[in-house]
Amino acid sequence: MHSPLITLLTDFGLQDAYVGIMKGVILSRCPAARLVDISHLIVAGNVRSAGYLLGTSWRYFPAGAIHVCVVDPGVGSDRRILGAKVADHLFLAPDNGLLSEVFAQAKPTKVVSVENQELFVQPVSRTFHGRDIFSPAAAALAAGRKLEELGPAADRWIQLPALAPLVEANNTIMGRIVHIDRFGNLITNLTALEVGENSTIHAGGHVIHGVQGHYAAAERGQLLAVIGSTGRVEISINHGDAARQLGASVGDPVWTGK
Amino acid sequence: MHSPLITLLTDFGLQDAYVGIMKGVILSRCPAARLVDISHLIVAGNVRSAGYLLGTSWRYFPAGAIHVCVVDPGVGSDRRILGAKVADHLFLAPDNGLLSEVFAQAKPTKVVSVENQELFVQPVSRTFHGRDIFSPAAAALAAGRKLEELGPAADRWIQLPALAPLVEANNTIMGRIVHIDRFGNLITNLTALEVGENSTIHAGGHVIHGVQGHYAAAERGQLLAVIGSTGRVEISINHGDAARQLGASVGDPVWTGK
Amino acid sequence: MHSPLITLLTDFGLQDAYVGIMKGVILSRCPAARLVDISHLIVAGNVRSAGYLLGTSWRYFPAGAIHVCVVDPGVGSDRRILGAKVADHLFLAPDNGLLSEVFAQAKPTKVVSVENQELFVQPVSRTFHGRDIFSPAAAALAAGRKLEELGPAADRWIQLPALAPLVEANNTIMGRIVHIDRFGNLITNLTALEVGENSTIHAGGHVIHGVQGHYAAAERGQLLAVIGSTGRVEISINHGDAARQLGASVGDPVWTGK
Repeated sequence: MHSPLITLLTDFGLQDAYVGIMKGVILSRCPAARLVDISHLIVAGNVRSAGYLLGTSWRYFPAGAIHVCVVDPGVGSDRRILGAKVADHLFLAPDNGLLSEVFAQAKPTKVVSVENQELFVQPVSRTFHGRDIFSPAAAALAAGRKLEELGPAADRWIQLPALAPLVEANNTIMGRIVHIDRFGNLITNLTALEVGENSTIHAGGHVIHGVQGHYAAAERGQLLAVIGSTGRVEISINHGDAARQLGASVGDPVWTGK
Repeated sequence: MHSPLITLLTDFGLQDAYVGIMKGVILSRCPAARLVDISHLIVAGNVRSAGYLLGTSWRYFPAGAIHVCVVDPGVGSDRRILGAKVADHLFLAPDNGLLSEVFAQAKPTKVVSVENQELFVQPVSRTFHGRDIFSPAAAALAAGRKLEELGPAADRWIQLPALAPLVEANNTIMGRIVHIDRFGNLITNLTALEVGENSTIHAGGHVIHGVQGHYAAAERGQLLAVIGSTGRVEISINHGDAARQLGASVGDPVWTGK
Repeated sequence: MHSPLITLLTDFGLQDAYVGIMKGVILSRCPAARLVDISHLIVAGNVRSAGYLLGTSWRYFPAGAIHVCVVDPGVGSDRRILGAKVADHLFLAPDNGLLSEVFAQAKPTKVVSVENQELFVQPVSRTFHGRDIFSPAAAALAAGRKLEELGPAADRWIQLPALAPLVEANNTIMGRIVHIDRFGNLITNLTALEVGENSTIHAGGHVIHGVQGHYAAAERGQLLAVIGSTGRVEISINHGDAARQLGASVGDPVWTGK
């Protein structure tokens, strides 16, 4: 049986009914859809953060998955909504840079501007496009409609600059913290390309010698650098919370050196 | 294939196993059921808040949906449990006013008192009817049992007063905040019936001239009034948190005036 | 149709994509799986707490359910991963004591060490076995693979001491708080075996006379002892938060006496 998979990534939180309403609209129009939450706790309006999480997760879903991403502070303005095909996956997101990381990983083979009013929940509100546009568009795709049926081709969109680290004159690699997870791990944009197991990492006023393979390689309570599950360097504390202990924030610098 | 849809709305939170246990009971008895969470983060015991969210969401689910609502500070006392049919939707909730908003939107065509012990998880605890009564009753309905099989008809129930605004002598419309969402938007009981785009709104010591169509109609950081996705006036800050900035709470007055 | 049920219990939180990624891996390999969250808000690394919640919930799922439990501060070290069969349920968990409570309730009939690399997501990271080992192993079981196919039999594992209360010389029963739920209820290891409705309970500097059947048996705001939904004594406040009011923590003593 055709049972399409739809993932949801929003900043709607879990205390309201917004996510449930989106699922109601989708299941009303495509009862066979299977729904998976990626996260709904993106910091309100933080497009970068949503893009980062999407970039770490989309490839783990099966081909044909439809990823609905609604972190959309410009809802109701004249910002467009994009539908995109990337490597057998479909994406719906506001044209605000949310898809930049996915597009940096794999070139989209088709991008449209979602404008087909016939598909939307009517009347379309100007404050909840998650309900009125994203959900019915996702249900339409899940029910077999083509991306082209959502609207005309788009040939330009907002692409945020990639988070690549900088190589400085003295061969220092300057990176920064791109995400802090629930455990307080500081996930950086330094990767195994830039650092090796003998590298020295500077972060939050600390100097860390060597890069480990797993968290428990350090003593309990000790700071360590580790190659995390996305291939990026993470600054962590075994059984502890590095973000809290170092007072670190997303955007803070992390660099290699002596 | 018959694949009934059950929604869940509780104040059980997500840190415990209560919601998972309810789902286990339902799927043990009706394996074909599809489950959708509306929210489990209702403030503990806040029947009004649960009723508000249910009122904004139930119509977006397909006909035949079964809505299980457990915000139930009187669990184990002699309060009754209601089963109700409203416009092709079924509802299960304690008789504490939780269904008032739904009943105000559409008259129930059948209401029963859920008492059929044969359907319940035995022995029925007096502290977790979500597990022992609501879930098996929902599974029974999902498996095709009739509402009448849950118990005898009920002809009285607790109906909380509607949240309609008041018109004062000087033509001021007195409303109040009925919900604050994750974004800090202050959702009021004033609707497009009471205000127009040129109305002036008073809230939290501020005077707001004009009612906008979407959040981004205001400058970043600026306070605005907007017709939200349920047709109610919301007090918002573009890219900000109006509740925090105004120190506003549910129940606070909001009114029209010069 | 064969539609296997997989439950998930982790400390991954809901703000990251970790849980979504696990679901993506499972559904990529076993599209028919149905997924139910027990909780993802276990305090980071708290194996006892995860074991407690699992112990209260697993029996409410249908026979054949696969319970995936990832509270795993030793991820990537040489700790093993267990696969276990208990009374027609299957479990996957790190060998860190997480399954102790389940094993105390019912003897496992088969335990294996999950080592079959062929089943894993390759390359296996050393920081996210939830994605690379637990999820594909669960999908393999859900798709019909036998527990023995996951790896060799295990005949030893970490079994944490049970949380039984102590009987002291003067016939006082010394228990303690084993869990605090969202409502602030203090769930103890005292059961209906140790206390009766006329018992006197000491907790947090308070003396409570009598054990009630439900929360609303006390006046609003009053402290009470109640037999909770798992048969354990809970210290609660009707319409209140006992944990906050008593400043109580998991591990604090609770005892019977005059």
